[in-house]
Amino acid sequence: MGFELSEDRVAADNDGRLECLQDDYDHLGLQLARRNVDIEALTSRAAAFRVAVPSWGVGTGGTRFARFPGPGEPRNVFEKLEDCEVVFKLVRSTPGISLHIPWDRPQNSPVLRMFAESRGLFIESMNSNTFQDQPGQPLSYKYGSLTHVDQAVRRQAIEQNLECLQLGLSLGARYHTVWIGDGGNFPGQLHFRRALDRYLDSLRAIYQKLPAGWRLFLEHKPYEPAFYSTVLGDWGTSYYCARELGERAFSLVDLGHHVPNTNVEQIVARLIHLGKLGGFHFTTVNSETTTLTRDR
Amino acid sequence: MGFELSEDRVAADNDGRLECLQDDYDHLGLQLARRNVDIEALTSRAAAFRVAVPSWGVGTGGTRFARFPGPGEPRNVFEKLEDCEVVFKLVRSTPGISLHIPWDRPQNSPVLRMFAESRGLFIESMNSNTFQDQPGQPLSYKYGSLTHVDQAVRRQAIEQNLECLQLGLSLGARYHTVWIGDGGNFPGQLHFRRALDRYLDSLRAIYQKLPAGWRLFLEHKPYEPAFYSTVLGDWGTSYYCARELGERAFSLVDLGHHVPNTNVEQIVARLIHLGKLGGFHFTTVNSETTTLTRDR
Amino acid sequence: MGFELSEDRVAADNDGRLECLQDDYDHLGLQLARRNVDIEALTSRAAAFRVAVPSWGVGTGGTRFARFPGPGEPRNVFEKLEDCEVVFKLVRSTPGISLHIPWDRPQNSPVLRMFAESRGLFIESMNSNTFQDQPGQPLSYKYGSLTHVDQAVRRQAIEQNLECLQLGLSLGARYHTVWIGDGGNFPGQLHFRRALDRYLDSLRAIYQKLPAGWRLFLEHKPYEPAFYSTVLGDWGTSYYCARELGERAFSLVDLGHHVPNTNVEQIVARLIHLGKLGGFHFTTVNSETTTLTRDR
Amino acid sequence: MGFELSEDRVAADNDGRLECLQDDYDHLGLQLARRNVDIEALTSRAAAFRVAVPSWGVGTGGTRFARFPGPGEPRNVFEKLEDCEVVFKLVRSTPGISLHIPWDRPQNSPVLRMFAESRGLFIESMNSNTFQDQPGQPLSYKYGSLTHVDQAVRRQAIEQNLECLQLGLSLGARYHTVWIGDGGNFPGQLHFRRALDRYLDSLRAIYQKLPAGWRLFLEHKPYEPAFYSTVLGDWGTSYYCARELGERAFSLVDLGHHVPNTNVEQIVARLIHLGKLGGFHFTTVNSETTTLTRDR
Repeated sequence: MGFELSEDRVAADNDGRLECLQDDYDHLGLQLARRNVDIEALTSRAAAFRVAVPSWGVGTGGTRFARFPGPGEPRNVFEKLEDCEVVFKLVRSTPGISLHIPWDRPQNSPVLRMFAESRGLFIESMNSNTFQDQPGQPLSYKYGSLTHVDQAVRRQAIEQNLECLQLGLSLGARYHTVWIGDGGNFPGQLHFRRALDRYLDSLRAIYQKLPAGWRLFLEHKPYEPAFYSTVLGDWGTSYYCARELGERAFSLVDLGHHVPNTNVEQIVARLIHLGKLGGFHFTTVNSETTTLTRDR
Repeated sequence: MGFELSEDRVAADNDGRLECLQDDYDHLGLQLARRNVDIEALTSRAAAFRVAVPSWGVGTGGTRFARFPGPGEPRNVFEKLEDCEVVFKLVRSTPGISLHIPWDRPQNSPVLRMFAESRGLFIESMNSNTFQDQPGQPLSYKYGSLTHVDQAVRRQAIEQNLECLQLGLSLGARYHTVWIGDGGNFPGQLHFRRALDRYLDSLRAIYQKLPAGWRLFLEHKPYEPAFYSTVLGDWGTSYYCARELGERAFSLVDLGHHVPNTNVEQIVARLIHLGKLGGFHFTTVNSETTTLTRDR
Repeated sequence: MGFELSEDRVAADNDGRLECLQDDYDHLGLQLARRNVDIEALTSRAAAFRVAVPSWGVGTGGTRFARFPGPGEPRNVFEKLEDCEVVFKLVRSTPGISLHIPWDRPQNSPVLRMFAESRGLFIESMNSNTFQDQPGQPLSYKYGSLTHVDQAVRRQAIEQNLECLQLGLSLGARYHTVWIGDGGNFPGQLHFRRALDRYLDSLRAIYQKLPAGWRLFLEHKPYEPAFYSTVLGDWGTSYYCARELGERAFSLVDLGHHVPNTNVEQIVARLIHLGKLGGFHFTTVNSETTTLTRDR
Repeated sequence: MGFELSEDRVAADNDGRLECLQDDYDHLGLQLARRNVDIEALTSRAAAFRVAVPSWGVGTGGTRFARFPGPGEPRNVFEKLEDCEVVFKLVRSTPGISLHIPWDRPQNSPVLRMFAESRGLFIESMNSNTFQDQPGQPLSYKYGSLTHVDQAVRRQAIEQNLECLQLGLSLGARYHTVWIGDGGNFPGQLHFRRALDRYLDSLRAIYQKLPAGWRLFLEHKPYEPAFYSTVLGDWGTSYYCARELGERAFSLVDLGHHVPNTNVEQIVARLIHLGKLGGFHFTTVNSETTTLTRDR
C-alpha cells in the first residue's frame, strides 16, 4: 500500500529546520570563501545530481536466512512507484526509476508510463533478472543464463533481455543493465574461457538490438550467488567486454561488488580514463532493517 | 520423497572397485611403512571417525537470490531421515543426526526416535533456529532473539531453546548447539557490551536446564545475516562465554565462519589448549548444485 | 639534527588563524547547542587527551624494499627527543614518550630523563624489541625470542625485557609493552600450543619483576614478520594471556594489526567489557613520505 | 661463498631412493592407466617444464623488521650464479637466470655470460629495479620512478631500463620484466589517470628499444611498497597497458600479488584468452628461514 506524503507536510517539516539550515549554509559559505571556493557553484553541482531508484529498493531485502517484511510493503509495480514518489518528494534528486524484468513487467506499458510521469517520475533504465526461475519458466537458470552451456537456455535469457529493450522503449527508458548470477561454485565446474565466449556471444545479440540513443551497462561482481567464480567477475573483464561490444557499451561499477581491500576509486578512475565508465550502483543495507533497534 | 538404496546395490558397486582399492591400499601401506607408519593404526583411527549430518543438509540450499530445488526433495523430517540413511549407507560414518527446531519439530518424539533407530541412525544433537520467524510466531526475531533488547523476545527465544532440550531428551540427543543471527547492520545500532550481557543472561538460563551428560555448544560467526557486527562474532568472545557458563559449555568452530585470512587451525589449537573445543561444523557448498554443469 | 621551533613562531602562525578558528568554534558551539550538547564539556575532554609518541616515530620508516631517509633525521635518542619536543609544541597533547630498547638504550638514564623533562616531556612507556639481532648479540632471534624452543634464547629475551623495566624505573616510566615477531612461516613449523606455553612462561618471568604501579601491555598481531602464524596473533589469545598473568597485565590493541574485515571496534568493546583494555597503538603511514608529491 | 655440489654426490643420494621412486612411479602409472591416462606423456610434459631462478633468490630475504642472513650468502653476481648452479643440479629444470639491475650489474658482460654458460646456465631475463636508491644515484626514486611527476626522474628510470636491454643483449637474454614500486600512500597523493599516462609514456620509450625477438613483461601488484594505490595495481590495468604497447608486450602474473580472495586462476585464464599472458612469478617464503625450527 502506497504511503501518501503531501507536499505541505514536507514543507511544514522543512520550515521548522530552515533557520538552522540557512545559518549552517552561511557559515559553510564563509569557510569555503576563505579557500576561494564559491559555495553557490558547489550547490549548483550538487543540485544537479540525479540517481535512479531501483524499483526493488522500496521493498524489504533479506538474506539467505530470512526476510522480515514490514507493514505496507508494495505488492506490485504501481505501489512501488507510489513509494518511489515518496522518496522523490523527500530527496528531490530521484525522478528516475530503474525497473527489473520480470519482477516489474507491466501489462500495459503506456499506463505504467503515464502513472510514473503523473508523479514527476520517469522510467530511466531496465534490468534483466536472469538469476532466478519464475513459475512456468520453460528452462531453468539453475546452471546459468546468458552463459549456460545449453544454447536453448542462453536463447531464453537473450529473449528476456530483448523483452526488456522493447518494454523500455515503450516506457521511455534509455539504459539497459545486465547483471547475471552465472558462475561456478567449484574449480573445474566452469570452463573460464568458453564461458566468457558464450557471454560475449549473448551480449552481442542484445547489443545488436539496443535502441538508438541507449547505452548498455555491464555490471561485474566477484562472488555471490556463485561462490568460486563468476563469469563477469572484475572490472578488467567488464572493460574488455564493453570494448568488444562497441561504443555504446559501458562498465557499471557497483561500489560493493569487489573483493576485500580493492581500491574501487582507482577502478573508477581507470574506467574514466578508458572512456568506459557507465555509472554506479550504490550498495547499501536496507535502512528500514535497523530503524527500530537503537540500543544505547 | 526418500530414495531407497539397497545394501546389495552398494555392495555390487563396491565389488567392481575392490581390486583397485586393495591394490592402492597395499601400495600406500608400503609407502607409510618406509616412514615407519603402520597403515592399520591409521585406518582404525579413520574408521572411528564420526560426523553428524544436519537434517537440512539433504535439502537444496540457496542464496538470497534464488533457491533451485531438485526433484525428490524431502518434505518432512521423516523423509529427511530417509535421505540421511542413504548418506549413511554410502559413507558409513554418519549414524548421528543433528536436528533443527522448529524446522524438524516432531509431533511424536518416540515415533521419530524409533524411525531413526530402525535405520541405524540416532539423533545426536539439537539446534535452535531463532534467526527466522515462523508463521504464527507471537514475537518477531527481526531485531534479535537471545540478545533482543526486549525481554519478552529473549524469553521466547530461551523457551525455544528449552524446548530443544526437552525434545532432545526424548530423542536421545546429547548436545545442544546455539547459533544466533543476532547482530547489527550499522555502527551504533547495537550496544556491543549490553548485547553480550544479554546473550550471557539468556545462555545461562539455557545452560541451567541442560540435561545431565549433555554439552552445550556455542557457535560464532563474524558476519551474515548481520552485516556489520554479530554478538558472538569470534572465537575470543565464544571462549569467554563458554568459560563463564561452566564446564559443560564449549566453543564450536565452523571452519568457514571467519574473516578472510584468519588462521583457523591456530584457533582450533587455542581452544584445545584451553579445554573448550566442542567440535566443528564443516561448511560446504551443496554439491548437488554443480553435478550437472561440467563444461570442459 | 634537531629542529628548533620557537614558541613565538608557533604563536605567530596561530595568530593569523585565530579569528577563523574562533568563528568556526562559535558556530560549532551553536550547532551542538541545538542538540543540547555543551561544546565546552567536549573541549575539556578533548584537551585532556594524551598520546605518547614512539621514539622511532620521528625517523623515516620504510618497507622491505627500501627506506628513503630525509635530511635532518635524528641520529640518537637525544635528537629523537628534540624532534618529539617539536611535535609536542605543535600538538600539545604528546608530552609522553615511548622508548624502544635497545634502539634508545641510554648510557646515563638520569641525564636522559632530565633532558626530556627540561623540554616538558617525560618517558611514559618502555618497549622491548626482540624482533631483530643487534651487532654482538650472543644468540639470534632469527627463530624466535620469548617463545624460542631454546631456553637460552628465551632467557636472553627475558633479560632484555627486565633491562627495560630497570631502565624504565630510572627514567620514570610506568608501562611496559611487549610485542614479539615470533611465529611461523609455514604450517607445521611451530607447535601452536607449546609456543603459547613458552610465551606465557616468559611473560610470567617478566610480570613477576614488574615495578610497583606499572602496567604490562601485550600487543597482538596476526601477520608480519611471520607469514603464516604468530604466537600472539589475535585479541582472544591476548586476553587469555593477560588474564593468566594477573591484574596488572592488559591487552593493547594496535588498530591496524588485524586481518581484513575485522570489526576492531567490537574487539575494543570486548576488552573494555572484560576489564583488560590497556591502550591503543595508532598505525599510520609516515606522513613525511607523502608531503612532497602532490600531483593534481 | 658458493657451495660445491658434485654430481656424484647427487647421484649417490638419488641411488638410495631410486627403488622406492620406481615403485611409486609404477603404481601411479597403474592408477593413471585405469583412467586411460598415459603416465609417460605426463612425464614428458613435466620434464619439459622450465623456470628461471631470480638471482636474488639465493640470498636470504627479510621483512621491514629484520633480515637474518645465514652463513655462505653470495656476495656478488658470480657467487649468486654458483648457488644457482647448485639449485640447477638438484632440480634440473632451472637453467635460466633472471638478473636484476643494478644489483647484478656486471663489469664485463662476456665474462659473466661465459661464467654462466660453463655451468649449464644462461641469462634468460632482465629486471629493472627502480624501487630503491643506489649510492651516488643523481635523482631519488622516493616519490616514484617511471611515473614520477618530474620528467628528469622518469628519464633516469627509463635509462636504467634501457641499460637492462643493452646488458641483456650482450648476455643473451630475451625477456625484460618491469615491476615498479610507484604508487601512493594516501588518497589524493597521486592523480590516478595522469600517473597511468606517465607510466605508458615511459613504457613506450622502453618498448621502442626492445631488441628483436624479445618480450616485455609488465608485472602488477596492488600494494607494497605503496600502501594505498599502485600505478600498475591489477591485471585489468596491466592488460590495457600491454595492449597499448604492442604485440611483444605481455602481462606477467605474480601468483601472490593480488588482494585477498582474488580468483587468480581466472585472471590467468583471462590473459590466455586475450593472448597477453607473459608468464608467472612464484611468490614463496624463503624456505631457508624455517629449516631449523621444527618444534613438534
